[in-house]
Amino acid sequence: MSRICYCIACLAIGLASPGTEAEDPLPSWSESAAKSSIVAYVEAAIDPQNAGFVPPQDRIAVFDNDGTLWPENPVPSQLAFALDSLRAEAPSHPEWATDPAVQAALAGRYGDLLADGYKGLVKIVSLTHAGMTTDEFGDRVTRWIETAKHPRFGRRYDQCVYQPMLELLAYLRANGFQTWIVSGGGSDFMRVWSERVYGIPARQVIGSYGLTKYELISGTPTLIKTTEGLFIDDKAGKPAAIHRFIAQRPVMAFGNSDGDLQMLEYVTVGNPLPSLGLIVHHTDAEREYAYDAAPKSSGKLVEALADAPKRGWLVVDMARDWRRVMAD
Amino acid sequence: MSRICYCIACLAIGLASPGTEAEDPLPSWSESAAKSSIVAYVEAAIDPQNAGFVPPQDRIAVFDNDGTLWPENPVPSQLAFALDSLRAEAPSHPEWATDPAVQAALAGRYGDLLADGYKGLVKIVSLTHAGMTTDEFGDRVTRWIETAKHPRFGRRYDQCVYQPMLELLAYLRANGFQTWIVSGGGSDFMRVWSERVYGIPARQVIGSYGLTKYELISGTPTLIKTTEGLFIDDKAGKPAAIHRFIAQRPVMAFGNSDGDLQMLEYVTVGNPLPSLGLIVHHTDAEREYAYDAAPKSSGKLVEALADAPKRGWLVVDMARDWRRVMAD
Repeated sequence: MSRICYCIACLAIGLASPGTEAEDPLPSWSESAAKSSIVAYVEAAIDPQNAGFVPPQDRIAVFDNDGTLWPENPVPSQLAFALDSLRAEAPSHPEWATDPAVQAALAGRYGDLLADGYKGLVKIVSLTHAGMTTDEFGDRVTRWIETAKHPRFGRRYDQCVYQPMLELLAYLRANGFQTWIVSGGGSDFMRVWSERVYGIPARQVIGSYGLTKYELISGTPTLIKTTEGLFIDDKAGKPAAIHRFIAQRPVMAFGNSDGDLQMLEYVTVGNPLPSLGLIVHHTDAEREYAYDAAPKSSGKLVEALADAPKRGWLVVDMARDWRRVMAD
Repeated sequence: MSRICYCIACLAIGLASPGTEAEDPLPSWSESAAKSSIVAYVEAAIDPQNAGFVPPQDRIAVFDNDGTLWPENPVPSQLAFALDSLRAEAPSHPEWATDPAVQAALAGRYGDLLADGYKGLVKIVSLTHAGMTTDEFGDRVTRWIETAKHPRFGRRYDQCVYQPMLELLAYLRANGFQTWIVSGGGSDFMRVWSERVYGIPARQVIGSYGLTKYELISGTPTLIKTTEGLFIDDKAGKPAAIHRFIAQRPVMAFGNSDGDLQMLEYVTVGNPLPSLGLIVHHTDAEREYAYDAAPKSSGKLVEALADAPKRGWLVVDMARDWRRVMAD
């Protein structure tokens, strides 16, 4: 095979035009139905003569983050950030010693945080993600991600990202797709590092968010994070957020849990354009984790997995379909 | 002067590179301080050797809509749409005959709609902008804008747009600026026609919005408009919305009322990059309208006008600075 560059510039001058024999753009993917379906979809999408052609302005691909681009075990990374923040600041907050939400979080009783309409979780978010400026919060996230280590993989969280998905992101962008994140994680948390880690600019990261409060403080325009108007970008919230932020229906959707079910539906069911949905199934206890119906924290996958055959969604068996899991 | 094209392709091959004598990109602007300041700002912004250089990824310009890109008199166009909708549907809603909000709206008592925390206005919005799918709403807006006529100018609302601002939008885009709308108007209302009328894609239109409810209806993914979680994209809401949607600080801001004050501050006060703020002052009763301190409906301009000299914001005197007002 000839060595072909997939960068936009080379594509523009035709070096990797349809029909050219190209180097494998997805080397970490085993030769599987998932891989061949993705490649067939993309090759059709960029070929104006093909019935599967997708006009450039419609090439929008949406990706869940936790469990789809990086692990969500033993807990989602943003929860690890929140717990580290609580631990670091607990000495200067003696009142937290009797706060049920803080104590549940520090003891790992996550179920307690979700009870009574997520009250405990909102309390933790208000203590760790609000009451500071957006710049201060960004600095905290940056400091954390530069130092904290994933408890199992022993390296920085932003180094625990899935190599096959990085290749997929690059492959789609090289073929004119816009790549977006649509995640239950916090927008302000992900936007700090999304461009560096995934090549996805902050503006193309949609997550959960609270309203920010604008004011001039000592003559400086300042945005203060709050938990008012909290929007949770999960389940039925995902199609709504796609409408709000992207303002059009994407043609590709990638997820891993029932939280992605509605996004997968919205992108693939009755879409007048050719579409593709894919679920990453965590089947690899050896290299990552194996869970679906009964995950320890987030990532339950039952309904979406049951719907996959009916909807024609691809299901990636992580153990079988990925040659490598983690990026270097 | 030589005839120079400002399209992206010509710019890319250097036909209009800095220093080239080019055709006036803003022919509907009089030779004024406002015009020369805009041109000087842009010429510096695209010149890497200039202290005013702005890196391409930071060239973000935000525009208010009502009163900045098109008129907001005698009432904002979206209110005209809502009133036309109420009138058209009143015969099938006899209960509206005794509804105080509907009656206030139809009688033009707009002050009543704003009393008691905008309760009347929210009621009107709920009757005309919610309880239907996003597609149905888009169809309604399209039908309205193709038929309704502006009461003073006697032509379609989307033909009552300011020619100088269309030239400015094109000029900025030709120089690598992203143009965004940040308006109190409804996102779903503006997004239907923004690309056709202003060349601004739907995704770059930020407005007021309510949450949408996603569900599968008869097997079809459907988004239903609601007034829950209503976000009003005005005043301090504008910088917050810019953070939420654009995820970075713009460098140019264009507005016309006190509703744009915080956006102008956020873009220009203490911005580490060179920035420019501009206020369109409605001084032209003959060709458009003259109002500031006491507008009949929206568009009050007192605080922002007072702040302009201190902040260095340009103030466009519509009567003096614009050779033409309306586009053909």
